Amino acid sequence: MGNQIKIGIIGAGAMGLLYAANLAEKADLTLFTRREEQANALKQKGISLIDNGTTKTIHINAVVVTDTAALSKQQLLIVAVKQYSLLEILPLLQAVPVETPMLFIQNGAGHLENLPLLGEKRTILVGISEHGAGRENDTTVVWRGHGRTKYSVYQGELDVSLEDWLNSVPDFPVEQHVNYLEIIQGKLFINAVINPLTAVLGVRNGELLENPEWHKLLDLLVEEMETVLPVQNGALKVKEICRVTANNFSSMALDKKYGRKTEIDGIVLPILEKAEREGKTLPTLRTLYHIIKGLEGESNV
Amino acid sequence: MGNQIKIGIIGAGAMGLLYAANLAEKADLTLFTRREEQANALKQKGISLIDNGTTKTIHINAVVVTDTAALSKQQLLIVAVKQYSLLEILPLLQAVPVETPMLFIQNGAGHLENLPLLGEKRTILVGISEHGAGRENDTTVVWRGHGRTKYSVYQGELDVSLEDWLNSVPDFPVEQHVNYLEIIQGKLFINAVINPLTAVLGVRNGELLENPEWHKLLDLLVEEMETVLPVQNGALKVKEICRVTANNFSSMALDKKYGRKTEIDGIVLPILEKAEREGKTLPTLRTLYHIIKGLEGESNV
Repeated sequence: MGNQIKIGIIGAGAMGLLYAANLAEKADLTLFTRREEQANALKQKGISLIDNGTTKTIHINAVVVTDTAALSKQQLLIVAVKQYSLLEILPLLQAVPVETPMLFIQNGAGHLENLPLLGEKRTILVGISEHGAGRENDTTVVWRGHGRTKYSVYQGELDVSLEDWLNSVPDFPVEQHVNYLEIIQGKLFINAVINPLTAVLGVRNGELLENPEWHKLLDLLVEEMETVLPVQNGALKVKEICRVTANNFSSMALDKKYGRKTEIDGIVLPILEKAEREGKTLPTLRTLYHIIKGLEGESNV
Repeated sequence: MGNQIKIGIIGAGAMGLLYAANLAEKADLTLFTRREEQANALKQKGISLIDNGTTKTIHINAVVVTDTAALSKQQLLIVAVKQYSLLEILPLLQAVPVETPMLFIQNGAGHLENLPLLGEKRTILVGISEHGAGRENDTTVVWRGHGRTKYSVYQGELDVSLEDWLNSVPDFPVEQHVNYLEIIQGKLFINAVINPLTAVLGVRNGELLENPEWHKLLDLLVEEMETVLPVQNGALKVKEICRVTANNFSSMALDKKYGRKTEIDGIVLPILEKAEREGKTLPTLRTLYHIIKGLEGESNV
């Protein structure tokens, strides 16, 4: 284990747990949690990964994210916290030596403007996850949809050995792409359509295609989005995701269901702001935005 | 009682029960129901009118609406069925002699186009109700908000004695106005904003002002509506109604809550169609429309 690459994953939500469980075998892995209680539980019990009905237990190391010494020891930090939690951990990340590369996998685009705060010389990778996952409890994650991780170099240079390592787990594919905006915009486009709609309606992704009225609404929303966020075959991509994740609730639908804060400001707000700068209006998206923002006020998150 | 004016009220939902309870003393009144079971219950128990915590029992006559002989005996028929039920009873109304005037109190404007089917020579009054009421069971209605009934002559001539009678119950004011479109548009404007919003959000009318995000949404919707439905001080009127009915659920919010068919096609569709004819778009209203129409499909009404 001493010769293995030291990988830190920050954030032990659904995504953090999923990445840790899948990458632990190929690395000397540490999972960084917000709460000490969760770190202790993970050290004792490991991660229970439920995939297609079978449960696998993966033993890992876990410490709280405020342990800056442990953070600084890593050769790569994969940041898997929710977009709206990034600002909170930014000071911790800034304290990590600029030699440590970081891979960010967040929904939306709201976090991009904060990345320069991590130092001009740091290698920063920006990625998205196409996996579906839900956290059951502090140590258990359900892998609902197998996907890929896509990333691009946002700034700096990626070490070849690190690049090779990222590609080393065949069952958990990680793909490098040239243009980070393309990756992020594609995911943003899909998320900005599926997430707010399913959250407002309280339904699974597949319903957006099956219900004729909601299908119309999806088409209207896609049409609107295309005026500000150019994504090739955006409508097709959105519908393909609805089809393959038909039985899943989107993260935003789940957040709304459980009265949690949603990622609406990371996903929808940057698009509304871009539209405003360009003198365009996205009234359907804006309607959904105000509905959800109002609900967040309601549940006092 | 033999000398009293013979008044028939068609529809024993919240509005029909409220009107029957308030007009019974001043008329030889018959309430026409869809179900024989309800007619029997009403004949036996009368109407229980709950107003501000106290219950009053009003004895009335009730028969099923298919009793065309009874329908034809009335000197005025007040039609208080939901807008979407009008088509169902149209053949029964057409069988009533053209000498019998009819007063329609429906939400929305969708029914206006069907009124000519009742005969060119019939006196037709078109009205709106500003009362708030909820039906508790077949014989019990709660008077939630005291308002007025406004009506205009849509076609024909209104007999003076009938006009006097309509004005004869001071606690249940009925006002004649010159322009029926003005009455209907004012109510339509208010309903098209408050009803779909509260139905989608599942909240009481007052929430639309109290929640800052939803207040913004209300403003956006009002702004949109003003481009196709000219109503003086529309925004002020909408907010005034939200204020005075702050603790009430709108009829559409209740219909959605209980999985019933809503009046969305009577209230919102005519406005969307008018906008389309005029080459305008009302994307916020259209979004709410598709959400609610889709929900109706969901509950299989």
